[in-house]
Amino acid sequence: MDGQYTIATLGSHSALQILKGARDEGFGTLAIASRETERLYRSFKFVDEVMTLDRYQDFPKIVADLQRRKAIIVPHGSFVAYLSLEEQKQMTVPYFGNKAVLDWEASRELQREWLTRAGLQLPRQFRSGAEIDRPVIVKLYGAAGGKGYMFIRDAADFETRAAKLQEAYTIQEYIIGVPLYIHYFYSPLDDTLEIMSMDRRYETNVDSLGRIPAAAQEGMDVSPSYVVVGNSPVSLRESMLVEALRMGEDVVRVSKEICPPKGLFGAFCIETIITPDIQFYVMEISARIVAGTNLFIDGSPYSYLNYSESMSTGRRIAREIKNALLTNNLGRVLDDSSVL
Amino acid sequence: MDGQYTIATLGSHSALQILKGARDEGFGTLAIASRETERLYRSFKFVDEVMTLDRYQDFPKIVADLQRRKAIIVPHGSFVAYLSLEEQKQMTVPYFGNKAVLDWEASRELQREWLTRAGLQLPRQFRSGAEIDRPVIVKLYGAAGGKGYMFIRDAADFETRAAKLQEAYTIQEYIIGVPLYIHYFYSPLDDTLEIMSMDRRYETNVDSLGRIPAAAQEGMDVSPSYVVVGNSPVSLRESMLVEALRMGEDVVRVSKEICPPKGLFGAFCIETIITPDIQFYVMEISARIVAGTNLFIDGSPYSYLNYSESMSTGRRIAREIKNALLTNNLGRVLDDSSVL
Amino acid sequence: MDGQYTIATLGSHSALQILKGARDEGFGTLAIASRETERLYRSFKFVDEVMTLDRYQDFPKIVADLQRRKAIIVPHGSFVAYLSLEEQKQMTVPYFGNKAVLDWEASRELQREWLTRAGLQLPRQFRSGAEIDRPVIVKLYGAAGGKGYMFIRDAADFETRAAKLQEAYTIQEYIIGVPLYIHYFYSPLDDTLEIMSMDRRYETNVDSLGRIPAAAQEGMDVSPSYVVVGNSPVSLRESMLVEALRMGEDVVRVSKEICPPKGLFGAFCIETIITPDIQFYVMEISARIVAGTNLFIDGSPYSYLNYSESMSTGRRIAREIKNALLTNNLGRVLDDSSVL
Repeated sequence: MDGQYTIATLGSHSALQILKGARDEGFGTLAIASRETERLYRSFKFVDEVMTLDRYQDFPKIVADLQRRKAIIVPHGSFVAYLSLEEQKQMTVPYFGNKAVLDWEASRELQREWLTRAGLQLPRQFRSGAEIDRPVIVKLYGAAGGKGYMFIRDAADFETRAAKLQEAYTIQEYIIGVPLYIHYFYSPLDDTLEIMSMDRRYETNVDSLGRIPAAAQEGMDVSPSYVVVGNSPVSLRESMLVEALRMGEDVVRVSKEICPPKGLFGAFCIETIITPDIQFYVMEISARIVAGTNLFIDGSPYSYLNYSESMSTGRRIAREIKNALLTNNLGRVLDDSSVL
Repeated sequence: MDGQYTIATLGSHSALQILKGARDEGFGTLAIASRETERLYRSFKFVDEVMTLDRYQDFPKIVADLQRRKAIIVPHGSFVAYLSLEEQKQMTVPYFGNKAVLDWEASRELQREWLTRAGLQLPRQFRSGAEIDRPVIVKLYGAAGGKGYMFIRDAADFETRAAKLQEAYTIQEYIIGVPLYIHYFYSPLDDTLEIMSMDRRYETNVDSLGRIPAAAQEGMDVSPSYVVVGNSPVSLRESMLVEALRMGEDVVRVSKEICPPKGLFGAFCIETIITPDIQFYVMEISARIVAGTNLFIDGSPYSYLNYSESMSTGRRIAREIKNALLTNNLGRVLDDSSVL
Repeated sequence: MDGQYTIATLGSHSALQILKGARDEGFGTLAIASRETERLYRSFKFVDEVMTLDRYQDFPKIVADLQRRKAIIVPHGSFVAYLSLEEQKQMTVPYFGNKAVLDWEASRELQREWLTRAGLQLPRQFRSGAEIDRPVIVKLYGAAGGKGYMFIRDAADFETRAAKLQEAYTIQEYIIGVPLYIHYFYSPLDDTLEIMSMDRRYETNVDSLGRIPAAAQEGMDVSPSYVVVGNSPVSLRESMLVEALRMGEDVVRVSKEICPPKGLFGAFCIETIITPDIQFYVMEISARIVAGTNLFIDGSPYSYLNYSESMSTGRRIAREIKNALLTNNLGRVLDDSSVL
């Protein structure tokens, strides 16, 4: 039965995981690649078909093809980078997820409202350089993958380095603590929330600064950058899982109020910093599968608790779609724009 | 046969791993939770039953219930935090492990004697601030999970920051090197020692300090804290496994002298720092399953060598109990206070 | 059929992985150990036989024994440390790999030529201290496992600390970015290149420096050392896999020109630093299985994409030998010096 449907995604980010998971759940698999990436995706046996676009904006040209193949699109972080919000919304190809959430995620103000209503603790925001009374991170709007983040020490440092920025930005308190990214999956079919896995990002150059002796750093005058090039696995103290689940549940609950009725479902990630008083500060939410789950294509210690098999987030998505099909509920896991 | 017995533990620390492992080996499973944590443990299908206590000190009230269920208690790191040593010793519920070891672990002096007799290399201890001639870590007595550790640079720094401490503490040489926590399992049935897995702790804020440029740190005047909020996986250079096993074996051998005849058995962990001359310095021993094993609920590269299946430390404990039952040796893996 | 053949290796480095993989593919297994290590290797059930040498240089004495057992040697990083290049070349025992590559790997100049011809980006080399205009790493010739590396801040620092070195060394630009080690497997039978896994090294003391506050570091005057004592797992941003594969393919392609006709095959590793502009700088190539693969004895997220089972690099090697045997192609995966 699943064989009739094909899971499709753009060839980037977590596409290998998504398509491997789709294959393991019995779906056809299709990667939409560029000239540069098509060879990569063709080299894996679990990818049934690769469609190549010269530019991702040509996506509308293949919509009819996708519909003919009964494709269901599973979005990931590169959709935002490769397609505009409008382009994503206008797709009528069946789409796993709720596109209404995209607006709440894309706007830093709306996202802040969402997370605050869910009772999450956010770092302080500053409206102007004059307000800065502690170290901050300046984030350019639309900064993706940690590019365009600046560590700013104080108001004077802001004047020198950030005040002349032409682009829009936010100024966020720098929270001193360790980063932890929690990967959730919310099933609208079962109304259950699972923790799939966790990671911390691997960022260049900031994750190598500590390897340079303090004295030498001063001579070198290196400034930190936060470009994400990978991820590494972590586990969380078990007593903190209660709060981790609480945060996820409240984020889902509020999402049903702001994007009714479906709200946020499927995979999402809450990006936290944990301070020495064992508090989670929330930096951001990603309303879809994140690249940190790529560490767990063969399963994670957390997903093993529920599945006793190699259950990645990509595979969990395919499993949800399969469960929806088996119970005649496909519409419940697709965006309402989906034309089946 | 195993179905008659239930493995029980407090809902915290590594309870999910212990109960999942128990289920995988065919036991019944029971979590003893608090009002805050009961929902977490109820949400997993492999937990057969959750008993909720208002306060962990109410433990004696459920002893009869536990005995009726043929429960075997598997202790973990939170037992020390939630129950006093005396409370643990007075339990007559069947208890995996040897309670006599608890005293040798709880006292820093006895523990130091034990480890020294086993030929382990320990950091120097200082009796007073005046003796300090190098950077040290001041550890409050009863400090758990890295809370209550202070990095002290020299004698003057000690005077300013630590001399007025009201609580008892030890002053330990700060060893410069990388931390490695080795997870062992000693089987009294087979008289064999296995390395199950390894980790390093994930500590806030100290594991994020390196991400702040040296120049900025000075302005911020951050002092390191060592609160453990998670763990991350590491492997060890294979040529160092010989010494890692030697340390574990000698710790077990000496334990049979100091807590005869059973000594230490089951899971334990030696916490080391490895210096550039490839020496292990031993910080501490934990005489039971540690939270770092939670990284390997689905198995570890080391346990795979022996089992070719997903063998966590929690599951290994259940396997040992099962093997004891199958060979009519249950008493050999339980504390002598256990009333069957 | 495989039962006739035995896979043998020196007891160190990644021998456990290699022999476990050999067993899983149906081969006999043999560890060649020292007096110190024989007990370790005897303790694993998948090791059929342990031969003990007083000194690794006694290797020639067991050649006849090895040939009688139809042993195939799988080399790893400790071969270079325990046996000289000449000793390795003179072995006539069947040897997985191409020994001609050893010379190109052992000489820093030849290796540089090889990697440059493959289009890899290398850090700048300085011929003398006078040329130094930025931080550099001074690497003693024959430095293994990161021992004998020195971080040098500038020309003056070089004068003070390195100018009087008696041994030969190279002076390499210090690239600021995060390390990533990519583990490849090239199959000469299928002419395909796979990414098996990835890691970063765990180095003492440099990976603990960041845990010491900047102010305290100055008082302590610690200088970084780079002694490798373990590894930790990382994943790579999926969009960078294209370049990672390109690098591996070009390294293999050029190897066929410089060591015709077989070139480099089997396991190898490219050691990179990733800079904030998302460029790979290549530090070194290891033309065989590296210790970082020990993190993945039970499989990796990358190998799971291709195998859906626990496929380590060690097992992949055994699988290749098995595939060669099954197709009557054993000679294609052995060095030409091999006397069958």
